[in-house]
Amino acid sequence: MTPTDPTKPLLRVLAGDRMPVPPIWMMRQAGRYLPEYRELRAKAGGFLELCFTPEFAAEVTLQPIRRFNFDAAIIFSDILVIPYALGREVRFEAGEGPRLDPLDTPAKVETLAAQADFGKLEPVYEALRRVRRELDPKIALIGFCGAPWTVATYMVAGQGTPDQAPARMMAYAHPEAFSKIIDVLVRNSVRYLLGQLAAGADVLQIFDTWAGILPPREFLRWSIEPTRRIVEGVRAKAPDARIIGFPRGAGAQLPDYVQATGVDAVSIDWAAEPSLIRERVQAKVAVQGNLDPLALIAGGAALDQAVDDVLANYGKGRLIFNLGHGIQPETPIAHVEQMIKRVRAHKG
Amino acid sequence: MTPTDPTKPLLRVLAGDRMPVPPIWMMRQAGRYLPEYRELRAKAGGFLELCFTPEFAAEVTLQPIRRFNFDAAIIFSDILVIPYALGREVRFEAGEGPRLDPLDTPAKVETLAAQADFGKLEPVYEALRRVRRELDPKIALIGFCGAPWTVATYMVAGQGTPDQAPARMMAYAHPEAFSKIIDVLVRNSVRYLLGQLAAGADVLQIFDTWAGILPPREFLRWSIEPTRRIVEGVRAKAPDARIIGFPRGAGAQLPDYVQATGVDAVSIDWAAEPSLIRERVQAKVAVQGNLDPLALIAGGAALDQAVDDVLANYGKGRLIFNLGHGIQPETPIAHVEQMIKRVRAHKG
Repeated sequence: MTPTDPTKPLLRVLAGDRMPVPPIWMMRQAGRYLPEYRELRAKAGGFLELCFTPEFAAEVTLQPIRRFNFDAAIIFSDILVIPYALGREVRFEAGEGPRLDPLDTPAKVETLAAQADFGKLEPVYEALRRVRRELDPKIALIGFCGAPWTVATYMVAGQGTPDQAPARMMAYAHPEAFSKIIDVLVRNSVRYLLGQLAAGADVLQIFDTWAGILPPREFLRWSIEPTRRIVEGVRAKAPDARIIGFPRGAGAQLPDYVQATGVDAVSIDWAAEPSLIRERVQAKVAVQGNLDPLALIAGGAALDQAVDDVLANYGKGRLIFNLGHGIQPETPIAHVEQMIKRVRAHKG
Repeated sequence: MTPTDPTKPLLRVLAGDRMPVPPIWMMRQAGRYLPEYRELRAKAGGFLELCFTPEFAAEVTLQPIRRFNFDAAIIFSDILVIPYALGREVRFEAGEGPRLDPLDTPAKVETLAAQADFGKLEPVYEALRRVRRELDPKIALIGFCGAPWTVATYMVAGQGTPDQAPARMMAYAHPEAFSKIIDVLVRNSVRYLLGQLAAGADVLQIFDTWAGILPPREFLRWSIEPTRRIVEGVRAKAPDARIIGFPRGAGAQLPDYVQATGVDAVSIDWAAEPSLIRERVQAKVAVQGNLDPLALIAGGAALDQAVDDVLANYGKGRLIFNLGHGIQPETPIAHVEQMIKRVRAHKG
């Protein structure tokens, strides 16, 4: 199956076609808003057990496909599997975010392994192979990694932080040490993404959740440039690889990101300004997004309006309908159905 | 004293002049990074006591002027004095953010007073008069209020929230109730700003700290439109009033904000994209900003580079040098001195 497989609407959009009815999927579509997910998660024990048990990871990846017939499945995993494979301690405690051993001094950065133990990531590849076997050929399978900047914010701080201050401070005060973390992440992310392609992924997404906090010089150095190197590294071995970037909050820096990284599409957050995106982003690459997840919780007329706004703003060009960020656990399933119905009724 | 007083560099920039050495001040310049502030705050007791005791508020307003000779003093107060004057309970507890009685249902919104008790705000006016009397005539005095959207996020949630979800949900699910809060804030903010002008403020700033979370339709309705009405309401009585808007995180929506609201300047955050700002914002109004407060904490070469970037990006046009957000308590005073020295040595 090639990345331009004409039977997959999502791949057609990435390859250059505008689809009258945009393909649709949701970030975090395998998640806690689904009772079948909550049930399996309870059975698996912890979050990492769910990620690293191929049978479970494949099953939760497929749950939203069975229920909603989305145009893409995204492998159930986490952006912190790379630090985990690098031998860092990574824990997910119930009700809290991730916890890692902080890499918050240059001396600690010296201890960072150059090379991940890819054996630890074999369960992710196995889960991809399982999903691939079961998935309808019209549905795209997405593999992913975190962008180096965003993964580094967790590695430096040892946890999620409201303003990513620890990583930003290390980047200002110790740029060589911080570069070392980024370089290790670039190299290992390339290999990890190639492994996901080999295991059956049609498309790759690079999540740079915290890109929007960076000033222009730092955005170029820590978000754009590492992403560009990953895209280049993947395409050196897999020239046809389809790659979606998601530098969340990049705002008016998105055109530079698109130009420099070479991604095939960008995912945009719900606060994006439509005319800039249409003229300077969608004219070059496909756009994925960007419904406000809160409109999906609200439902009713507010949801219809929000869906219509996304279609009106971006539906005349290459669009993959999605949310502007992950779906939230309290989202009613009926609202997801309302959204899908409205998107698929779109007369484009 | 008129707003175009030629002796005040900051007012000259707002009136249309580019200054070779940009005027400089810092958001939250009267704050915890200063030992003299911490001392007075301890003496005052609570935060609201500090705001509402004119002698204390005037003194902390003047502290950073004495120490750094900034080009503007901003009256020491808080954006939540409007809900306070509307009779809402507002508390500031040590180490935590503000706490209010939440207005989180349409029924509760019905209880909101239409009119603030402006007697409660008399101490702010008195503090302005005291500062005015002591302030060097070359230094501008800034009054301010919160933008209705941002103030409403606190009033609805009853506290600060990471994603402003309670206010965003009320705006989606109960737009009439939410509009009522906004309308009350617009009307009372106009009167409050006019009161500050009468008490001696040369310039007004409208802080919309949480504007950047809003999708385009909501940004127009809840950030731009209420701000436009405030600017219009103030200018109806004070046609020469100089007003700076700060829709933080507005990104590529800034040109629309400038066009629609009629502000004389916008404050920009540190993640702003320079070419968009220069071409579509600074071509029309003055720009204030936008040093990353973390670069100010880092100091050294990183700070010099960050200062130089702001000057290179915006120094050829009308610029008021400032931070991209408030100064943080852990900032070394020596770094503030380093920044000021470098800005004032600028050969523009």
